[in-house]
Amino acid sequence: MSLSLYDVSVPAFLRGFANLTEILKKGEAFADEKGIAHKELLEARLIEDMLPLTGQIQRASDSAKFVPVRVGGVENVPFSDDEVTFADLHARIEKTVAFLKDVVPASMADREDIEVVLKTRSGETIFNGKSYVLGFALPNFYFHVTTAYAILRHKGVPVGKMDYLGRP
Amino acid sequence: MSLSLYDVSVPAFLRGFANLTEILKKGEAFADEKGIAHKELLEARLIEDMLPLTGQIQRASDSAKFVPVRVGGVENVPFSDDEVTFADLHARIEKTVAFLKDVVPASMADREDIEVVLKTRSGETIFNGKSYVLGFALPNFYFHVTTAYAILRHKGVPVGKMDYLGRP
Repeated sequence: MSLSLYDVSVPAFLRGFANLTEILKKGEAFADEKGIAHKELLEARLIEDMLPLTGQIQRASDSAKFVPVRVGGVENVPFSDDEVTFADLHARIEKTVAFLKDVVPASMADREDIEVVLKTRSGETIFNGKSYVLGFALPNFYFHVTTAYAILRHKGVPVGKMDYLGRP
Repeated sequence: MSLSLYDVSVPAFLRGFANLTEILKKGEAFADEKGIAHKELLEARLIEDMLPLTGQIQRASDSAKFVPVRVGGVENVPFSDDEVTFADLHARIEKTVAFLKDVVPASMADREDIEVVLKTRSGETIFNGKSYVLGFALPNFYFHVTTAYAILRHKGVPVGKMDYLGRP
């Protein structure tokens, strides 16, 4: 038995989004219970030049979506990053999950050695399929999911490690 | 080509620790430059009932170390969780990296279906090798690395996303 690039990424993303959905629901319920404006959580940041909660969800969405796009040659569906409410964030997650569920695992088979070029503000970074998924996309995805969790945790939302990890 | 449980975990952990080492160095340099006691960063938390920076490094260390132990049958080397200085944290990371570098990849081959039983405060959780690595150990490792980063970032340390991701 062995693992494909699909096996190590898409199911982990789906699981992460399921956990994130529950974490966001707990955040919204906490705000309502405490009489805190939703905006105060949605726009919360760990420090002023980091992305707020909404941005963390948007980046988690893109980190996941670009794996089948860049590795499996799946056509990209652009999302406009205009989410401002909890309902918007749930819709963004649902769109991302639907996109991921449509990915045919075979599209990502034997793609470990393809070239993946990532253009960022600081220039081009060249990966192969394997280093892109394992060394960039997965750590990046978990970075944004963890930071979303950390923002809500920092604001007092009663979420715990099991909400982040989910149940196997 | 395909991936083994070793391929998807141990190299990612080694890379994460290399990045974490640089992040900790930037934290220490920032404290010295600003005249902040090291303890203020080492004991910083995002909220009072979350682990401080030292605890995040200890848990990242254990998350990684227990993969070859639980999946590859490698003998555990207990670490005592008594780190209190930046030098201690670097030593903890170095011990963990040395442990991981000694792992023979073949010890983790074809272990996707073995039973992995995890005992926690809330009871036993049963995984197989694959679900343990992909659905527990990797998200848990990145959780603690990201939270260590987030604590320092929240305290004003000038670290950025590329410090977390490292260079491929």
